[in-house]
Amino acid sequence: MMVAAVRPGEAGAMGTRLSAPRLPVPDKATLDKAFSAFSKVVGKDWVFDSKDDAALYRDPYSLLWDEAEEKTASGAVAPTSAEQVVDIVRIANEYKIPLYPVSTGKNLGYGGAAPVLPGSVVVDLKRMNKVLEVNERNSYAVVEPGVSYFEIYEHIQERGLKLWIDVPGPGWGSLVGNALDRGLGYTLAQYRNHFDAHCGMEVVLPTGDLMRTGMGAMPKAETWQQFKTGYGPWVDGMFSQSNFGIVTKMGFWLMPQPEAFATGRVSVPKYHDLIPLVDIMNRLEAGHIVQGGFNLSCPIIGTSIGGGPTAMVPTQQDPEIMAVVNDPIGFVPERLDPLGVKHGIPFWTCECNYYGPRKLIEAQWACTKDAFKAIPGVHFELGEVETMPLPKEKVDTLQDTVFYGIPTLRTFSVGPLKDYGGASVVGHVFFSPVVPRTGEAVIAANEVLGTIARKHGLPVTPIQFPNAAFERTFLFVVALPVTRDVKVNQQIRAIFKELIAAAAERGWGEYRTTPAFYDEIMDTYSFNDHALRRFHETVKDAVDPNGILSAGRYGIWPQHLREQQQRRKSA
Amino acid sequence: MMVAAVRPGEAGAMGTRLSAPRLPVPDKATLDKAFSAFSKVVGKDWVFDSKDDAALYRDPYSLLWDEAEEKTASGAVAPTSAEQVVDIVRIANEYKIPLYPVSTGKNLGYGGAAPVLPGSVVVDLKRMNKVLEVNERNSYAVVEPGVSYFEIYEHIQERGLKLWIDVPGPGWGSLVGNALDRGLGYTLAQYRNHFDAHCGMEVVLPTGDLMRTGMGAMPKAETWQQFKTGYGPWVDGMFSQSNFGIVTKMGFWLMPQPEAFATGRVSVPKYHDLIPLVDIMNRLEAGHIVQGGFNLSCPIIGTSIGGGPTAMVPTQQDPEIMAVVNDPIGFVPERLDPLGVKHGIPFWTCECNYYGPRKLIEAQWACTKDAFKAIPGVHFELGEVETMPLPKEKVDTLQDTVFYGIPTLRTFSVGPLKDYGGASVVGHVFFSPVVPRTGEAVIAANEVLGTIARKHGLPVTPIQFPNAAFERTFLFVVALPVTRDVKVNQQIRAIFKELIAAAAERGWGEYRTTPAFYDEIMDTYSFNDHALRRFHETVKDAVDPNGILSAGRYGIWPQHLREQQQRRKSA
Repeated sequence: MMVAAVRPGEAGAMGTRLSAPRLPVPDKATLDKAFSAFSKVVGKDWVFDSKDDAALYRDPYSLLWDEAEEKTASGAVAPTSAEQVVDIVRIANEYKIPLYPVSTGKNLGYGGAAPVLPGSVVVDLKRMNKVLEVNERNSYAVVEPGVSYFEIYEHIQERGLKLWIDVPGPGWGSLVGNALDRGLGYTLAQYRNHFDAHCGMEVVLPTGDLMRTGMGAMPKAETWQQFKTGYGPWVDGMFSQSNFGIVTKMGFWLMPQPEAFATGRVSVPKYHDLIPLVDIMNRLEAGHIVQGGFNLSCPIIGTSIGGGPTAMVPTQQDPEIMAVVNDPIGFVPERLDPLGVKHGIPFWTCECNYYGPRKLIEAQWACTKDAFKAIPGVHFELGEVETMPLPKEKVDTLQDTVFYGIPTLRTFSVGPLKDYGGASVVGHVFFSPVVPRTGEAVIAANEVLGTIARKHGLPVTPIQFPNAAFERTFLFVVALPVTRDVKVNQQIRAIFKELIAAAAERGWGEYRTTPAFYDEIMDTYSFNDHALRRFHETVKDAVDPNGILSAGRYGIWPQHLREQQQRRKSA
Repeated sequence: MMVAAVRPGEAGAMGTRLSAPRLPVPDKATLDKAFSAFSKVVGKDWVFDSKDDAALYRDPYSLLWDEAEEKTASGAVAPTSAEQVVDIVRIANEYKIPLYPVSTGKNLGYGGAAPVLPGSVVVDLKRMNKVLEVNERNSYAVVEPGVSYFEIYEHIQERGLKLWIDVPGPGWGSLVGNALDRGLGYTLAQYRNHFDAHCGMEVVLPTGDLMRTGMGAMPKAETWQQFKTGYGPWVDGMFSQSNFGIVTKMGFWLMPQPEAFATGRVSVPKYHDLIPLVDIMNRLEAGHIVQGGFNLSCPIIGTSIGGGPTAMVPTQQDPEIMAVVNDPIGFVPERLDPLGVKHGIPFWTCECNYYGPRKLIEAQWACTKDAFKAIPGVHFELGEVETMPLPKEKVDTLQDTVFYGIPTLRTFSVGPLKDYGGASVVGHVFFSPVVPRTGEAVIAANEVLGTIARKHGLPVTPIQFPNAAFERTFLFVVALPVTRDVKVNQQIRAIFKELIAAAAERGWGEYRTTPAFYDEIMDTYSFNDHALRRFHETVKDAVDPNGILSAGRYGIWPQHLREQQQRRKSA
């Protein structure tokens, strides 16, 4: 299966890459000329060329903070239209200026607004914040990249449209940026997958050409946001987690406001009950019986029930249970089974969410119970079936509003972050591997990754449960702290790399990461001598011959930087 | 918005293309050498180099049959493994032999097994017919391109697995081929869209490199069929309706066998009731309340109820109604409204399909009635809620089994085809534009496209209804006859082109077509001087530098053939 035929001259057998190159960034005189040309496009006020300006684009959650390798910008330019983006890209090609577009720059934990290649000029798209259309009859929206979840939510509320958006944890991010980084949310499966919920793009290519995908390529078409694939190759996926173009418009399918929402709770008593629990979840999801998602938690060791960003906060600490958890000889989860029975605490709880008319929710809940009742000792509890929209008084009392399609920043109010390694913790980065959607895989991931996390004193619970936001997929997310202490951050980077390697050894690959680990992770997707990365590089060189756009993003480097890395490696 | 920056040397302003080039196909001596080299890979018995052999790959539904432009092959080669495909591609690069891969070659009405570029060698993948895995716990399958719907169905039945496949009209086609041409089916929305239901690919690139996408790029990953997008750019869409690679393995998400199936019928009395009918359909679908699809029909003018391939067969011919339909002054559909009331025949019927537990189906039907009851005069009727699997005796009596996930060829038994233009009709090609998902658009498409179809005596009903198999999308399909009479076929080609132009004028673009019209249709996707096609060409030249693979497929020609076309145009 490992047959490879490599074209002469192709980067065939490069194998594992070195870390990000330290580039000869454009000299000051060239940069000044480019900034001057950018000024003519966007106006002087929207070119940010001072050191202080550039500092605003640092990633506050960078694990490279204040180190030589920190990924900092040379400056920024903020256009208001696709036409201005075209002009900026043409100027960048003329002066060979590396560009790094960001939508709202709020991709915290996965990179923020900082470029991958130090010295790049950030193309800050937050001024492109027009909601171009919200169509209630066909339930979609078209937005520019600067539109945040808060802004489109307000737009919809002001007009009284009966449509919901699907929001990520914090709501200040961009719909376009989040979807392109393949972020996820909390409502119905189709909408939770933010890239999958998009329909149609407008893209400025690295050569400055303006392109529309899907039905958008047909003049006069009114179906740009109705039919994804159009005619001929469907190229939209190429512009997610990549550096092949700057997306300047994007359509999103929205959900009609549901009549009601409810959460049903399925609890099972034993550690190994997770195996049938997951199998039944999978069939309910693939049969489209439960569509509002599943949130797993582990009450026996005191993780709160509720899923979402707050699920890792311990809520109870029974001493008998904690003695087993903290047994110096080692934690054997099965030993908790009888204690759970004794204290009446389930081992696992799976929350199932339902959106729709009341009678549909009731039927879906009945079908859910029918399916899970095969597990001995299972317990069911349906929460209140709430009529939508929630009254404002109710919204104000909620810890989290994401399940109601309401953007929020309350995820940041979960309490003070603990210190790590003697240093104050300022944020987190996320290690987010895809593991098989089986109970066995979750148990194995707890053994392999949980053990590493605990060994290093990371703030993880004794048993971790996976995120099921993507259909048919489990993400086993481990949050790692970020500090302002260089030595501590270096330790944390080493732990992150240990996790990457241990996961790859089991075939668990990350779905997304912070730029410090783009290359390491792309290295693990190595089938047939990195055929997929070599394909990306072939495309990159063709569509971006000067290599100006987002060099290094998701491990894709343009030709001149790959050659430089090769020379460094050979030297 | 029409700003374009074109790289020097790029095919910037080519605009509308000429039709397919007549190529200098490889000379006999070079072909013989290549066939001899192919023999060493696959064995002499699996190289088909005679004229009789090549004739087997003619498209029986070609509108160019026996004309100089007919798209015929030089021969064929039939590998049994991805490794053999790699070797064939390497040989083709060495001898500059144009290749044209087909899966089972059954894409009738959309091209069959014939290459786009005459003289190409067909890479016939039907011997690669292994079902590599069917996973019941996680509801997916992995197949090679030669696996037909019949074969995987038998595989699942023999093993007693509780999984359903989603099948297209005729079941002899390939899962891989149908998905790559973006075909559609009849069960739940996610599975009906055959490309959307795939997860993970293995591809032989035109240079002979073997690549796996998504999680398949990670060695040891068990999630290749569980998580679509993997890490970095998601490239799978590039290999649909294109010529960027030969797909040798593909994963598909399957549906757990539902407990039951039922069809609910919603009938409305007036022509313009279609407008609220479609709006309500859209909200039920986007809210994931009706997920089993909608089949529209038009009982007032005698189209049968039942959707699918048989829906266009007239079943009743009331004389009073036919007098209005055939009014020599012109057919005004609204004039049928009172006759429908008088005879108790609804104007429109929308069948809604439901899959799942009985109590869920009953609730979904209740919600469906709640939603449609806003239309005055609406009538509801729920068919039998049938327990799955259907008993074999029942299956044997059905006109069509596609709604039950059972492959069939009964679609070919709808009776003899009428003559057209004095010639016997041997088959059909389909004109399949995407129109907005509104009642107004269906009415407009009937006026514009229906009028053209009737003017030319095409076998269409007085009112045509759209196909709603794709979510949020309407396809307005017109079947055109194919004969063995060159003059008649030329007329039909002219009608097809008239339809393309009239549709494009309204912004209605085709989602798929037969090769005779690949270029004409790609021409209509012309935003910003054909930016999307120019992007495809840039990618094509990079990934297939010798231009050997499926030249011309979906209007994408390699560089040397584009240049030849330019010379012909200038000459």
